[in-house]
Amino acid sequence: MKSHDSLYIIIVGCGRLGSYLANNLSSSGHSVVVIDKEESAFDSLSSAYSGFRIAGDAAEFGVLKQVKMDKADLVIATTQEDNLNLMIAQIAKNLFDVPKVMARVFDPKREKIYRDFDIETICPTTFAGDLFLESVILYFKTKVEGSPS
Amino acid sequence: MKSHDSLYIIIVGCGRLGSYLANNLSSSGHSVVVIDKEESAFDSLSSAYSGFRIAGDAAEFGVLKQVKMDKADLVIATTQEDNLNLMIAQIAKNLFDVPKVMARVFDPKREKIYRDFDIETICPTTFAGDLFLESVILYFKTKVEGSPS
Repeated sequence: MKSHDSLYIIIVGCGRLGSYLANNLSSSGHSVVVIDKEESAFDSLSSAYSGFRIAGDAAEFGVLKQVKMDKADLVIATTQEDNLNLMIAQIAKNLFDVPKVMARVFDPKREKIYRDFDIETICPTTFAGDLFLESVILYFKTKVEGSPS
Repeated sequence: MKSHDSLYIIIVGCGRLGSYLANNLSSSGHSVVVIDKEESAFDSLSSAYSGFRIAGDAAEFGVLKQVKMDKADLVIATTQEDNLNLMIAQIAKNLFDVPKVMARVFDPKREKIYRDFDIETICPTTFAGDLFLESVILYFKTKVEGSPS
């Protein structure tokens, strides 16, 4: 933990995004702990995942102490609930002084709140939307200009 | 419809992604129809949205005929259910000969199935995951190399 060779990373939520990150970051050599309320969520972790699995509610302070959040270099909140992610991210930042905190946020309108707290956010909806839009613009351009025969 | 000035676009699902696309594509001057089972979903559409709202089940063939899917230049399936999106996309492609069909897919493992049917997909999970990973890699690099004082 806090070594220069790897990061100590806590991932909250082991859904599709959480497990994707946990698998990748663990195989990159970082020390990963993933927390989820549901034990079955850990089934998404790959057989190569070498980090810890903690079945518990990250909204409980005891669970955050159990995973030694004060030692974390990075906390990533990826649960399905924007409010829970915001709460965990704020606790990580303000109570445990975690240097880097990231959160998935579904509602783009909430991104400003996170920025005010110096929490990095990624909104999949906006990203996916922009990718779709780019593709539509390209398609429309081709259609208007005519495709080469 | 099928003019060169704009596209006739059918968006299935008016959640965060669907409404984001509907608002943007409508304000770009395209003819947009958005379908959702829940009338309340249309509350996410902006006041500037000038397209149609159809409250109905896109899994019903009658609804797809009602929105004149055979005239569509583009169909985008954005519901919360991967299976429903796949079904709608296949119907659009194979039964209504829609030239361009796109779908949001949550489960990255399903992307291949879509590609086999010539359906363009975007997986928000993978995109968000890769963006988080990029940021972590950059952070780790800065940490290892030391930040400039």
